[in-house]
Amino acid sequence: MSQKRVNKVVLAYSGGLDTSIILKWLQTTYGCEVVTFTADLGQGEELEPARKKAQLLGIKDENIFIEDLREEFVRDYVFPMFRANAQYEGLYLLGTSIARPLIAKKQIEIAERLGADAVSHGATGKGNDQVRFELSYYALKPDVTVIAPWREWDLRSREQLIAFAEQHQIPIAKDKRGEAPFSIDANLLHCSSEGKVLEDPAAEVPDYVFSRTVSPEEAPDRPTTITIGFERGDAVSIDGEAMSPATILTRLNALGRENGIGRLDLVENRFVGMKSRGMYETPGGTILLLAHRAIESITLDRGAAHLKDELMPRYAELIYNGFWFSPERELLQGLIDKSQDFVTGEVRLKLYKGAAHIVGRTSPYSLYDQDLVTFEEGAVAYDHRDAAGFIKLNALRLRTLAQRKRKMGL
Amino acid sequence: MSQKRVNKVVLAYSGGLDTSIILKWLQTTYGCEVVTFTADLGQGEELEPARKKAQLLGIKDENIFIEDLREEFVRDYVFPMFRANAQYEGLYLLGTSIARPLIAKKQIEIAERLGADAVSHGATGKGNDQVRFELSYYALKPDVTVIAPWREWDLRSREQLIAFAEQHQIPIAKDKRGEAPFSIDANLLHCSSEGKVLEDPAAEVPDYVFSRTVSPEEAPDRPTTITIGFERGDAVSIDGEAMSPATILTRLNALGRENGIGRLDLVENRFVGMKSRGMYETPGGTILLLAHRAIESITLDRGAAHLKDELMPRYAELIYNGFWFSPERELLQGLIDKSQDFVTGEVRLKLYKGAAHIVGRTSPYSLYDQDLVTFEEGAVAYDHRDAAGFIKLNALRLRTLAQRKRKMGL
Amino acid sequence: MSQKRVNKVVLAYSGGLDTSIILKWLQTTYGCEVVTFTADLGQGEELEPARKKAQLLGIKDENIFIEDLREEFVRDYVFPMFRANAQYEGLYLLGTSIARPLIAKKQIEIAERLGADAVSHGATGKGNDQVRFELSYYALKPDVTVIAPWREWDLRSREQLIAFAEQHQIPIAKDKRGEAPFSIDANLLHCSSEGKVLEDPAAEVPDYVFSRTVSPEEAPDRPTTITIGFERGDAVSIDGEAMSPATILTRLNALGRENGIGRLDLVENRFVGMKSRGMYETPGGTILLLAHRAIESITLDRGAAHLKDELMPRYAELIYNGFWFSPERELLQGLIDKSQDFVTGEVRLKLYKGAAHIVGRTSPYSLYDQDLVTFEEGAVAYDHRDAAGFIKLNALRLRTLAQRKRKMGL
Amino acid sequence: MSQKRVNKVVLAYSGGLDTSIILKWLQTTYGCEVVTFTADLGQGEELEPARKKAQLLGIKDENIFIEDLREEFVRDYVFPMFRANAQYEGLYLLGTSIARPLIAKKQIEIAERLGADAVSHGATGKGNDQVRFELSYYALKPDVTVIAPWREWDLRSREQLIAFAEQHQIPIAKDKRGEAPFSIDANLLHCSSEGKVLEDPAAEVPDYVFSRTVSPEEAPDRPTTITIGFERGDAVSIDGEAMSPATILTRLNALGRENGIGRLDLVENRFVGMKSRGMYETPGGTILLLAHRAIESITLDRGAAHLKDELMPRYAELIYNGFWFSPERELLQGLIDKSQDFVTGEVRLKLYKGAAHIVGRTSPYSLYDQDLVTFEEGAVAYDHRDAAGFIKLNALRLRTLAQRKRKMGL
Repeated sequence: MSQKRVNKVVLAYSGGLDTSIILKWLQTTYGCEVVTFTADLGQGEELEPARKKAQLLGIKDENIFIEDLREEFVRDYVFPMFRANAQYEGLYLLGTSIARPLIAKKQIEIAERLGADAVSHGATGKGNDQVRFELSYYALKPDVTVIAPWREWDLRSREQLIAFAEQHQIPIAKDKRGEAPFSIDANLLHCSSEGKVLEDPAAEVPDYVFSRTVSPEEAPDRPTTITIGFERGDAVSIDGEAMSPATILTRLNALGRENGIGRLDLVENRFVGMKSRGMYETPGGTILLLAHRAIESITLDRGAAHLKDELMPRYAELIYNGFWFSPERELLQGLIDKSQDFVTGEVRLKLYKGAAHIVGRTSPYSLYDQDLVTFEEGAVAYDHRDAAGFIKLNALRLRTLAQRKRKMGL
Repeated sequence: MSQKRVNKVVLAYSGGLDTSIILKWLQTTYGCEVVTFTADLGQGEELEPARKKAQLLGIKDENIFIEDLREEFVRDYVFPMFRANAQYEGLYLLGTSIARPLIAKKQIEIAERLGADAVSHGATGKGNDQVRFELSYYALKPDVTVIAPWREWDLRSREQLIAFAEQHQIPIAKDKRGEAPFSIDANLLHCSSEGKVLEDPAAEVPDYVFSRTVSPEEAPDRPTTITIGFERGDAVSIDGEAMSPATILTRLNALGRENGIGRLDLVENRFVGMKSRGMYETPGGTILLLAHRAIESITLDRGAAHLKDELMPRYAELIYNGFWFSPERELLQGLIDKSQDFVTGEVRLKLYKGAAHIVGRTSPYSLYDQDLVTFEEGAVAYDHRDAAGFIKLNALRLRTLAQRKRKMGL
Repeated sequence: MSQKRVNKVVLAYSGGLDTSIILKWLQTTYGCEVVTFTADLGQGEELEPARKKAQLLGIKDENIFIEDLREEFVRDYVFPMFRANAQYEGLYLLGTSIARPLIAKKQIEIAERLGADAVSHGATGKGNDQVRFELSYYALKPDVTVIAPWREWDLRSREQLIAFAEQHQIPIAKDKRGEAPFSIDANLLHCSSEGKVLEDPAAEVPDYVFSRTVSPEEAPDRPTTITIGFERGDAVSIDGEAMSPATILTRLNALGRENGIGRLDLVENRFVGMKSRGMYETPGGTILLLAHRAIESITLDRGAAHLKDELMPRYAELIYNGFWFSPERELLQGLIDKSQDFVTGEVRLKLYKGAAHIVGRTSPYSLYDQDLVTFEEGAVAYDHRDAAGFIKLNALRLRTLAQRKRKMGL
Repeated sequence: MSQKRVNKVVLAYSGGLDTSIILKWLQTTYGCEVVTFTADLGQGEELEPARKKAQLLGIKDENIFIEDLREEFVRDYVFPMFRANAQYEGLYLLGTSIARPLIAKKQIEIAERLGADAVSHGATGKGNDQVRFELSYYALKPDVTVIAPWREWDLRSREQLIAFAEQHQIPIAKDKRGEAPFSIDANLLHCSSEGKVLEDPAAEVPDYVFSRTVSPEEAPDRPTTITIGFERGDAVSIDGEAMSPATILTRLNALGRENGIGRLDLVENRFVGMKSRGMYETPGGTILLLAHRAIESITLDRGAAHLKDELMPRYAELIYNGFWFSPERELLQGLIDKSQDFVTGEVRLKLYKGAAHIVGRTSPYSLYDQDLVTFEEGAVAYDHRDAAGFIKLNALRLRTLAQRKRKMGL
């Protein structure tokens, strides 16, 4: 593959060994200026070491960008997605998928500001993340040059990578010399693990893989009860205390962690065509999804709720596949956001040894009308004789069909 | 409402007080012969008392029908539904909904055999069950007369019902004199409770409501590990032991019960238009759904899996609304059943204090190909350079859109 | 059915014999004050005679409401619907369905203003219109009393209706004494005919049924070419001349009429459960739909376009079934409206003997990029080698499936 | 791109200049044995010249395969697709898309028989056809090597192609020296034209582009009336005369051609990401679609019909994108086929100057029940009082919503 000429590239830089190798490889291969972008999305790592590492690798101070994106991440990406009750393939809460568009957006913003003509990321050539990064890049800056080192270079093994690092004086932590037993992606919403020891879908995930949750067995012997407050579909408080989006998710993560909630062992279908097995820990998100469904259950009309349910698999697939910045995702988002106008109220949950359970829900906008359910005359009268006509007309076409069958002797 | 003349009516008869009152009311109001049909769907009650009760109320022996439908119920109703991973409004496993069509079908079969011109049921005028029963009746016997006593009679209170019972010498158990604190529907798939003490959706469900599961807190302190075998989408064995459908569900229910699995506190949208709050216990079904998704995850192609996921909400809604015997449910069922040709293999799960967790899955038909996921050359080669073209063409329309925006100065 | 007490009722009044009978029947049966509402929706009839008729029947001047709704009808109902390319059952342009919610809304507005507690309409008990009227009434004024005379009275034949009219001094036009050979509904969007002579779906529609179009055979022997301008999805001009919504539709109707365009002979499925056969004439709408699709074809992204196409059947069904004022219709409308931001430009069409044909389309926002289609280097470069990777990854899961088949010896 | 070693390649060979150049290029580039496959899909060309041409280019007789696939094409591809009423982007009848899987399948069958390890086609690198061919190849023979000359060679212009042809003694028809004004794909279902003179979507298609239809203006001045018989969703007769699938389509093509029916000027969204403008002529197919919808309208239940309508856009997209041999297309096909069990009967149409019009339809399985529509007592009684209850319960949730609004002061 012939290389395009590139002047300046904005690299999604974690400060770790792999993206440090990429940094150096970009410099040596493209002979271009490298700009590093390091984001705090709640992955739980210090960012300052990334600055030092970048400096050490020769990046000028004005080319080092470090940003705390936690609030933006939860407010503008995680929460909008949870308004949809999005679950990919019925179960996955899309923790990795939802972070990529934001990182890509920030890279493009920096590229525009600095006049950089290229962007680069550390995602491998077999995964979904390369797609998510690059679709976002292209959607935001159609003429950008994308450099995907893992697809381009000829470093074919861990040994070659280490050799390249040594050759370029990249510091190598002791535990990074060998191959990691699995690879990790983490942010405020979740931590995912995949590869190596997880590759046999028949084999149980070893204990040391988990980092965000205690095991259900080790969780407390007594349930924890909490109340989550919602406004227009978003969580806004816990136990009556108002909090920012990132603070709420952080707090729910802590609650989930302690109670062993949010582990998911999944074989999923990647956009690039193969199946893969992952272990996800989404402690706060797992609680949040359940609570969000509960507050919707009393505030959302059936028509709106069912429409949302039918559109959800497609919406989740769009995010999983990397189409966050696409017209169809944005159109669906508009519909979903609009549906949340009255999704306001409180949900009480019990957290206990690996699961969350709904205990109660209230809302000033509740559509649950006790008078309708009981026999007493309600504000909107329900006349049970109406049910006869309702059933008769719903049955009409079925009766006509049955008559046809009969006529045909079937 | 003027009453139609009726000669013989087949009543879905439980042997309980309410359907006994109905029985008598049918005799006195319509002056017709009453045929009772009592089914064992795994509700956990003896059937012979129902026979005695019917005899006592003057039903001739040849007009008393009692049938054990447990195997048919699980094989032809529950399992087909689970092939679809059906959940109404994202959560409800449709335990009540799925039982009605079978009871209705049996009533109609008896009606055809005996030349009865009417059928009757004990469902109230505010619920979904009346719809499910009656749509099924009409779909199977378009000229049948349906008698829904709860919509027709003028017994307006518990007191009037009791008075009617006393007046007609219907035996009344002591604890049936007062109003029940909640109403129950039970079968092999689940037990549902609703009404009265459950009506406030903000109030926690009292402990005494649960009958099918121990509370998670009371469940054993150590996980139980089981292996469920599947063939073409249906569970066929537990821990290697082959079992009939009903036996498997019974066993899974026991496992779920002990481990506190399958409780669901839900506010749902009824077909007749209002919201209602129910407490469901579906111990075996909850485990089964999770296991079925897991075996599908390695045996089902993405295209088939996502199609199923997108159709599921609608399929679930059809069952919930009572359209089991409708062309659209049958067409969807055909599609779902066909998708299960290779959904065969084993799933290992851990059951622990209120939740089930997937631990591993294997299949002779697995589409999970480790060679594709790892870097080694697989049987079907994955060339990571292909990803570049894949992304580029997927991005093309997004880039065109971005160019339009740019051109427009947006 | 016991009658509710009613003080004042707002009747959708056409001035014709049937609604005059209803007017009188309401007065005599309910003993209530009747308010008449007569709307010009472009049905092609004078409205002043309706005023005279109402006066003659004893309605006070302040209780007679006549309104020209043509602009509101096209702008707020017809055009929004056409943004969705809505066709019920693949063909029907929903001309009757879309008019009902507007009439209902006006009735309710008058009822609120006058403190009327009831509304009434002249739709029969077998059709869809009763549903459309009444769902709209209830959605806008939940406590309203709805009087549907055709379902309530005991006038069972034409003779009885005429007798009632004579008895109450309602003037009867000569040609109204007998039964009409078919019934008509007309507004600016369409004219529908059904019943009697149209009831045999095997028999050709007689010529005298058509009122809005010449037959294709009688249309001019030379095509008419026109250009329709669109802004944000709505037609705004014809042949460069800017016009109001109603004026445009009126003009398109004239063009369609002359060229024999827009006849549709259809058997459709009513919401109330049976099939019915209708003859629709939608001259302008037929042209408009085609033109709208054409302007979308160059301005709408594939993702947005396909999403719209998949949602359309459901959206059309909602309107057909009378759910215009429902959350799900409104949510879909929001999505559809948003999609039209760039649906601006011009479409040229040829009208000729019963059909319209697209001849060309242009837009300042066109996404059609000739550079992408031809071999030259485009603004967004298309590298045909990318196609290889695109295909390979799209094929990956299919190859995996094929390998499984092979392994299984299938 | 490094070339794979190939022993024997099966080429989709038309006998024209382009595929002859490909043939020679395969020989010279891959040094492999070339097998030619030429199919009669009703494109309207003699096949024997292709044999001679292949021989001339040095292909051994046993490596030349010529097959008349017209019946198989219509029976197993066109008709199944028409059962779904498939239209891509609302209008396109998929004439090109549906032919590719069959050609690919035949190539793979020959490859398996002859032990060939590769297949090749003449589709360019910018179109959909390469995708359709190759997805089919891979789905049927996962280890096949696919050679797409247009993506691989460095012949970059018409001049270079001609030079290559001359250099290799490939005969060049005079009119093939220059660039064609547009490119054509034809088979029994349709003829499509695109490129060059058609590239400006604002410019009218020149008359000389059309080859399958007379212009509506030139069509006869009197309508032609025909009757199409259907059995289980497929056309089986015209005017009472039973015919094979290919014969019927041929006959409908002739009828459509004479009457100027089936022209479509469309800008569509290609799977590979850009828009393109095509002119399609589908004379018989256009008539067939209309007739099929008409016979369905009286034989298909609403539930089945609406389900089909909602699934159609996706089904059409699958075929357009080349996923004929995919589990999801096959699952949808199964559903669609099953729905056609009673789609049997006759449809009468008028063909006139560019359009077809339904005149009548009959079926022994008709669900259209005149008794239900008229006021007389039908076999399945319709009681118009039932409508009241039907509406009331459908309105219930809307009324609850309206009450919430009122309570909120909205």
